Amino acid sequence: MRAVDLIIKKRENQVLTKDEIHFLIDGYVKGEIPDYQISALLMAIVFNGLTEEEQLNLTYEMLNSGDKIDLSSVPGIKADKHSTGGVGDKTTLVVAPIVASCGVKMAKMSGRGLGHTGGTLDKLESIPNFRIALTEEEFLKQVKEISIAVVGQTAEIAPADKKLYALRDVTGTVESIGLIASSIMSKKLASGASHILLDVKVGDGAFMKDLASAKELAQAMVKIGNNAGRKTVAVLTDMDQPLGIAVGNALEVIEAIETLKGNGPEDFKILCYELASELLLMTKVVDSKEKALELVDMKIRSGEALEKLRQMIQYQFGDERVINDTVYSLKQNK
Amino acid sequence: MRAVDLIIKKRENQVLTKDEIHFLIDGYVKGEIPDYQISALLMAIVFNGLTEEEQLNLTYEMLNSGDKIDLSSVPGIKADKHSTGGVGDKTTLVVAPIVASCGVKMAKMSGRGLGHTGGTLDKLESIPNFRIALTEEEFLKQVKEISIAVVGQTAEIAPADKKLYALRDVTGTVESIGLIASSIMSKKLASGASHILLDVKVGDGAFMKDLASAKELAQAMVKIGNNAGRKTVAVLTDMDQPLGIAVGNALEVIEAIETLKGNGPEDFKILCYELASELLLMTKVVDSKEKALELVDMKIRSGEALEKLRQMIQYQFGDERVINDTVYSLKQNK
Repeated sequence: MRAVDLIIKKRENQVLTKDEIHFLIDGYVKGEIPDYQISALLMAIVFNGLTEEEQLNLTYEMLNSGDKIDLSSVPGIKADKHSTGGVGDKTTLVVAPIVASCGVKMAKMSGRGLGHTGGTLDKLESIPNFRIALTEEEFLKQVKEISIAVVGQTAEIAPADKKLYALRDVTGTVESIGLIASSIMSKKLASGASHILLDVKVGDGAFMKDLASAKELAQAMVKIGNNAGRKTVAVLTDMDQPLGIAVGNALEVIEAIETLKGNGPEDFKILCYELASELLLMTKVVDSKEKALELVDMKIRSGEALEKLRQMIQYQFGDERVINDTVYSLKQNK
Repeated sequence: MRAVDLIIKKRENQVLTKDEIHFLIDGYVKGEIPDYQISALLMAIVFNGLTEEEQLNLTYEMLNSGDKIDLSSVPGIKADKHSTGGVGDKTTLVVAPIVASCGVKMAKMSGRGLGHTGGTLDKLESIPNFRIALTEEEFLKQVKEISIAVVGQTAEIAPADKKLYALRDVTGTVESIGLIASSIMSKKLASGASHILLDVKVGDGAFMKDLASAKELAQAMVKIGNNAGRKTVAVLTDMDQPLGIAVGNALEVIEAIETLKGNGPEDFKILCYELASELLLMTKVVDSKEKALELVDMKIRSGEALEKLRQMIQYQFGDERVINDTVYSLKQNK
């Protein structure tokens, strides 16, 4: 097998086999296939796309290039939520505590921001002393004890994806549904959750600018997830305007806390309720959307959801004073 | 300016400006832009093509990356002939002597073979002791004295093209009309001839498999040549079967010599007459195709064309015994 022949094959819009995808990705990770061949291949993929099967094979190839988190020692249903990001997105900080307070395990490995948008980790680190780097042991222990953890990668997750993404970023080959879907799903599968909710943003502030491509991306990811044996659901959410009012890591943490107190801006609150309800439905905690929304509302009003966030901050060495004195966090970040 | 933005621009099928093409090619030659960015750009070009203006700008950029041959000290009309190659193509060995014997200066820098086809230089080197490496001074002196020289590059011609071609070869990005046309023409413009005849092969044995793409390539090259102020003409010639009977460097030299003696295979003879006639017409040595063919025939029958080849072999230190004893050449190559 020669890389150049496989590049030409994809350029001619033929389907790459599982073995061929393995040859290319494995060879690239090992440094046997140079980046200039992979970038040409990626550009051919941008133009010709990847079939459903190619996407699944590419996802597995990237998944198997690294470590996988084994959540089998954690009892109960393990769910994960992924957002394709956008300006002002801090839904994880609200949705994960709500769902965890309903007994679903939220063992979440999160990412840094891409471009000008902060990632969940960046937002959490605006809480004084909050620690995002836990060992896998600490991570699993925390999820067992309080049902929630949001950390950085505890292991080398999908290094092939990392290497490919870095190349895509500088070669104008980011914008491909098949590549985006495989990239996201390789990391989601590695994180070990049995239930995956995908929040695909669409609009001017999001990565996917139009509804059609957002739908296509959502469908592609759901197919990969379900084909890999994980219950996967996607919701498309509007991102024409920044979510809520706050933009900026510390301000967004404050807004999330206020939302857990029942004081959130309406648009952001609606979205969080929606996502939390979907997670409760897909994990079968409740059997109707109506009951799900009721349960979410109850967890907010009772303070149980906020308490989950407080526990998480405490377990992860953060200064929990931010919960009661949100201005405090801002002062510490000056 | 950032390379990644220009890659995306081309991916989005927008037109790159002269400055942008300069930035990319100059940066690549200087090692400031890495090959993985250029290969992604090349693949985007394979899909979206290059406009006429982009082709001209790319040609100039590659031309200006290296040395140019100055033929101004050689009196008379300086013509060049280029073939896009194919199995068994040895037309230069016949056409150049014919045209030179009519007084047109044939100062030809030739290339090595690509793939499985031998280039003109490879064929000439099958003549015992034939030297293809001349200094520019020797080259110009020879053209002045006997009107004909076929040599390897005397100077660094279009190094940008050389670097780009090497990258295209391993990244599945050879097959682009715009890139092929710019590559060929950058070298043709550098070689200094005022009149350029392009022999574009079409068919199973040629680089261009179908008539439509061969026509497109021919038109693209003629436009570049004429826009650059050189009289440029292209002829499309059939390459479904190997030309003539002989395939193999030494055998092809013998066949060329036999053709100059009037004993060539009919298909090959017709092609050589055609190309030589075109050159005599475009350089205005004669004013009709009929007269051109007559003049060519006369130069073959009188032995003047063969004598030109003999002179060239002699000037370039080759063993001129091959002219009279063609089997001799074969024996030397065993």
